[in-house]
Amino acid sequence: MTVLTDQYAAERAAIDAGLRAAAARLPAPAARITAYHYGWTDEAGAAVDANSGKALRPLLTLLAATAVSGDWRDAVPAAVAVEMVHNFSLIHDDIIDRDHLRRHRPTAWKAFGVNDAILVGDALHALAFECLAEAGGERAAAGAGLLAQTVRALIEGQLADTRFEDRDQVDLAECVAMSEAKTASLMGCATALGALFGGGTPEQVEALRDFGFRLGLAFQHVDDLLGIWGDPAVTGKAVYSDLRNRKKSLPVTAALGSGHADALELARIYRADGPLDDQGLRRAADLVESCGGRTASQRAAESLTAAAARGLAGRRLRDEGVEALASLAASTVGRAS
Amino acid sequence: MTVLTDQYAAERAAIDAGLRAAAARLPAPAARITAYHYGWTDEAGAAVDANSGKALRPLLTLLAATAVSGDWRDAVPAAVAVEMVHNFSLIHDDIIDRDHLRRHRPTAWKAFGVNDAILVGDALHALAFECLAEAGGERAAAGAGLLAQTVRALIEGQLADTRFEDRDQVDLAECVAMSEAKTASLMGCATALGALFGGGTPEQVEALRDFGFRLGLAFQHVDDLLGIWGDPAVTGKAVYSDLRNRKKSLPVTAALGSGHADALELARIYRADGPLDDQGLRRAADLVESCGGRTASQRAAESLTAAAARGLAGRRLRDEGVEALASLAASTVGRAS
Repeated sequence: MTVLTDQYAAERAAIDAGLRAAAARLPAPAARITAYHYGWTDEAGAAVDANSGKALRPLLTLLAATAVSGDWRDAVPAAVAVEMVHNFSLIHDDIIDRDHLRRHRPTAWKAFGVNDAILVGDALHALAFECLAEAGGERAAAGAGLLAQTVRALIEGQLADTRFEDRDQVDLAECVAMSEAKTASLMGCATALGALFGGGTPEQVEALRDFGFRLGLAFQHVDDLLGIWGDPAVTGKAVYSDLRNRKKSLPVTAALGSGHADALELARIYRADGPLDDQGLRRAADLVESCGGRTASQRAAESLTAAAARGLAGRRLRDEGVEALASLAASTVGRAS
Repeated sequence: MTVLTDQYAAERAAIDAGLRAAAARLPAPAARITAYHYGWTDEAGAAVDANSGKALRPLLTLLAATAVSGDWRDAVPAAVAVEMVHNFSLIHDDIIDRDHLRRHRPTAWKAFGVNDAILVGDALHALAFECLAEAGGERAAAGAGLLAQTVRALIEGQLADTRFEDRDQVDLAECVAMSEAKTASLMGCATALGALFGGGTPEQVEALRDFGFRLGLAFQHVDDLLGIWGDPAVTGKAVYSDLRNRKKSLPVTAALGSGHADALELARIYRADGPLDDQGLRRAADLVESCGGRTASQRAAESLTAAAARGLAGRRLRDEGVEALASLAASTVGRAS
């Protein structure tokens, strides 16, 4: 299921143009790696039409601007900034997690080396603030402050995530807090910045931040379900990918903490040394399911999405924008069903 | 020679307090590594009074605010932001350059691992923009834009620097451009932000940016002289450190491009494989000198410092601030004499 990739053609074109214009300011080696990372070029620099990601976050920014009765065009710098921060964090996280593939292609550090990947991530990070700052005035300063706080949260989440790997036990509450920091905070920032740049009231900015934050957590539940049961052709990852890596994802953490008899066997599998074979992977997936982990994440995603939509009521938002956001939310959660 | 470390006690205390207050917002693991990097704590987290650097850049920011007849206290957030960007780039550059020591102690990545060092650098980068943004209003947005452009220049310089290592020949012009991007741009940003936050006119901001930029390039010439002839007890680096690493620094590049007969022998030494012994290091240093590289950098540092000071004339600046900046500039260049 696509995330409304055929809709909002004008918005998507504006995001793409904004990203390309910003990237063109980078020094040549950084511009080249950025173009590769975004899927605009191959490793040799030739133009290609690779999958450059869903651009979900910048689209949320523009729809939030519409929802507060603003002109989405005013929010393009904010949308570009959010997408740049997202991609800076992907590039650095891929180094940290030693991930070799992203969107079915070698990650930036695999293709261009760790040193250049660190610097390109730094460049996109700075460029995000440059885009926001150029919008000028109070909204630029407020937006930069919000974005910087969000990066702080992203880093808190990534620090927690790297530490979870070394621990036998992680509470569901800790795992939720990590997912909030790593994923929900940036989605909340995306919608808040859209509302801010669309001229929304402080209450509307706050309501749209809550919307994005809940949707972001729902998104992570769905992502974690796909990390176990997703179709490799769609996810670009190996089947049972998160179980292979013994990742303490939301459904797994829910299963481990369920008190169900099968949780002990799952915990043993997670504690064991050496790679899991196909039978072990299937067994682990079945145990996550029998312990209620799959259902827990499905229900959490649905209830968060419903709560996100409800939170927009009574905020004097434009119906068209609210419907678009609700539809985007539904399709995001729909990925796993 | 110290860089006025005993002067400006109130300014230095405000910078220190600002840095500590900002660092306290970081998630615990990042705060701990930041405190270590700044020399506030040892690797175990116990308070120490290590050498936390000269804090030259934030002091330049506060003196620039004074020079435009502003209250330096208004420029503390900008000073803190500049110092955070400087330290984020040091932490990432140490990873990239595989440097094991900084200020006589293990670098952040040596002490805490590459992954955490990447994340802490990212956190300080974001925190710099958070500090600026909180100042609010047009100056915050303008300052964030200037700081972001500066980070772009820093990255351009670092990308160039990593590529110089793989090349046999580097023009002096290329080496100067790299030093401008890597060092002069942030010093120019430091003084420009001080002028901006001190309420200076656009012309004053520009004049102070030029001052900082020239001083920064002078500073790099001096640093490169110390990289060859500096006292290890002062620099914290091995004697002939830059020659050991066959670094294409400013005096070396000037010597190699001098057309002097000895330049060929120096080029052979730089192209040869394997480490240089003590005799080879002394010979290389002598060749840089006989080719005029040492004199060239000494003269460049002096003339840049003089030009920096001259550029402040006729800008309706406060004498007290101009004298302080000129004195700081003279002491910076005086390090090498």
